[in-house]
Amino acid sequence: MFAPPAATAQQASRSGPLVIQEQGSFAVGGTVSSTPGTYDNNTPTAAGQSLHGDHLYAFYQVPQNPRPLPIVMLHGAYQSARSWETTPDGREGFQTIFLRRNFSTYLVDQPRRGRAGNSTVATTIEPAPYDQLFFDQFRIGTWPNHFDGVQFDRKPETLNQFFRSVTPNTGPYDAGVISDAISALFDKIGPGILFTHSQAGGPGWLTAIKNQNVKAIVSFEPGSGFVFPAGELPPAMPSAAGPLAPEPVAPEDFRKLTRIPILIYYGDNIPTEPTARRGEDNWRVRLAMARLWVDAVNRHGGDARLVHLPAIGIRGNTHFIFSDLNNAAIADLVSTFLREKKLD
Amino acid sequence: MFAPPAATAQQASRSGPLVIQEQGSFAVGGTVSSTPGTYDNNTPTAAGQSLHGDHLYAFYQVPQNPRPLPIVMLHGAYQSARSWETTPDGREGFQTIFLRRNFSTYLVDQPRRGRAGNSTVATTIEPAPYDQLFFDQFRIGTWPNHFDGVQFDRKPETLNQFFRSVTPNTGPYDAGVISDAISALFDKIGPGILFTHSQAGGPGWLTAIKNQNVKAIVSFEPGSGFVFPAGELPPAMPSAAGPLAPEPVAPEDFRKLTRIPILIYYGDNIPTEPTARRGEDNWRVRLAMARLWVDAVNRHGGDARLVHLPAIGIRGNTHFIFSDLNNAAIADLVSTFLREKKLD
Repeated sequence: MFAPPAATAQQASRSGPLVIQEQGSFAVGGTVSSTPGTYDNNTPTAAGQSLHGDHLYAFYQVPQNPRPLPIVMLHGAYQSARSWETTPDGREGFQTIFLRRNFSTYLVDQPRRGRAGNSTVATTIEPAPYDQLFFDQFRIGTWPNHFDGVQFDRKPETLNQFFRSVTPNTGPYDAGVISDAISALFDKIGPGILFTHSQAGGPGWLTAIKNQNVKAIVSFEPGSGFVFPAGELPPAMPSAAGPLAPEPVAPEDFRKLTRIPILIYYGDNIPTEPTARRGEDNWRVRLAMARLWVDAVNRHGGDARLVHLPAIGIRGNTHFIFSDLNNAAIADLVSTFLREKKLD
Repeated sequence: MFAPPAATAQQASRSGPLVIQEQGSFAVGGTVSSTPGTYDNNTPTAAGQSLHGDHLYAFYQVPQNPRPLPIVMLHGAYQSARSWETTPDGREGFQTIFLRRNFSTYLVDQPRRGRAGNSTVATTIEPAPYDQLFFDQFRIGTWPNHFDGVQFDRKPETLNQFFRSVTPNTGPYDAGVISDAISALFDKIGPGILFTHSQAGGPGWLTAIKNQNVKAIVSFEPGSGFVFPAGELPPAMPSAAGPLAPEPVAPEDFRKLTRIPILIYYGDNIPTEPTARRGEDNWRVRLAMARLWVDAVNRHGGDARLVHLPAIGIRGNTHFIFSDLNNAAIADLVSTFLREKKLD
């Protein structure tokens, strides 16, 4: 049988083989808590024992001839690194798409989530039935109806996979704990690019403040943790999903966000006027706050850009822009940005 | 630059590139629970909503020219698929070792663990300090001392990584739920080989009873769920870690375990006589029960073998045989078994 040269595999079309130099996983960051007392090997109790927790878990892949900067991908609420893997309808996600584009990738389960489940703080997990809420809030449609033209496949198995990508917190959500761990990851791997989704927006900004190895952020629908310089906070924004409040940081910390290029995407079906439809109204205020945030970064000399996809003619995106039906086109937009900023 | 042919990469030495035809992840199995009532899109409560839970999560990789049977790897208690990835000291684990040997691999997070965290039953997660207990129970040594000659690297970072691979249950452990999901995985992927570790031993046997697509099992230190034909149960075995009781199954179900080759490994530092040292005594009874179990399978016409590694001159293995310092040699043993049984 004819064996194609490896170089062919590497310049791969979407269906060609991946050539991976190295892959693996590790934990990084976190803390160790200890219980006073003396450990008894034969009759162990908590006394004298320790717990390693609050770290993150990362799975990485290094392609042949990798570009200089790896991409770290941080999921949103109720999700894990699974967000960036296979799409709900079974196509390649950003993990493999950007590997094919010769970026090393680091997919993270944040502290107290997924495979980084060991938390130093207790929690109770209730089997909360949220499928219908997620359908609305993640803007697939208004349950049980899909939005017209939504970039989300309508096969029942697609929705099944989407719902089963949900995984709970195993400890209280803490943006400080998360950004500490992501910062430790950037200490370990060196300079890189950070992709964030939804709730990870806030920890993403905090990580860039903490660590100069974050060389750019691409944030997909950041949903909370909009940090502004103390004294420059806009008012909280009421919505049908509750108020969205900005969060203060020291002005000198905020200025650290002006050192790097930042790109933010929001998808479709976000109203401009208040509506009682909770799932949509939730994003109306987030998009509005993100616009104020981008203005603040740029006012302080930064390089932030917000792309509302419908404004450039790209319609139908849900809250999961990077796994929507048009995710290859979205990846092209991201690649163009990285090239423009000389990050590839 | 000279590009080596892909065939070279594929017959790879341990440091050569991996050529991967396809990779990705999915959920399979599980159930949907529903709350009575009518869902209100604008003011959502639990009413009328559903929850997808109790599925497993799998990450798969298909090498070029894969062997006919993929390998499914199922972790033990307090672990996730991370068990099979990079070893605590940073070398390749069974995921990548068997990929290099041209097996497709499916790494599973079982229902209610890791990225398959959505449980249909509530639980409370306490930050239980178990590091020292795990050090003893997983037979790295007697805390704080390593066993002489243990196949576990002594750098502090190795132990740090080992402890941080621990992740809690996000719902009650249920061997029936787990084996249902693994069986659904084998329905999806077709015939394959199942590797199990520790607590996964029991769900492994149950899966082989439920699904004829399980063509062989390699079990590393099965720790519980030893199923015997009703009426042929040996007595429970007391130990310093509590009693180990066999579990009854219908004789016709037990006989299904005689259709496939089964290989079981146990490592070193397992005493033959009762001892007060809990971590070691725990495995004394498990090894003894496994011997009775293998005898029962073979008495009914099966093909089960137990290899106590020290008996063949392989010393120092912990409870994590497949990630110990000699894991490449252990993989060679497994490869020889698969070849003998014409499973490769």
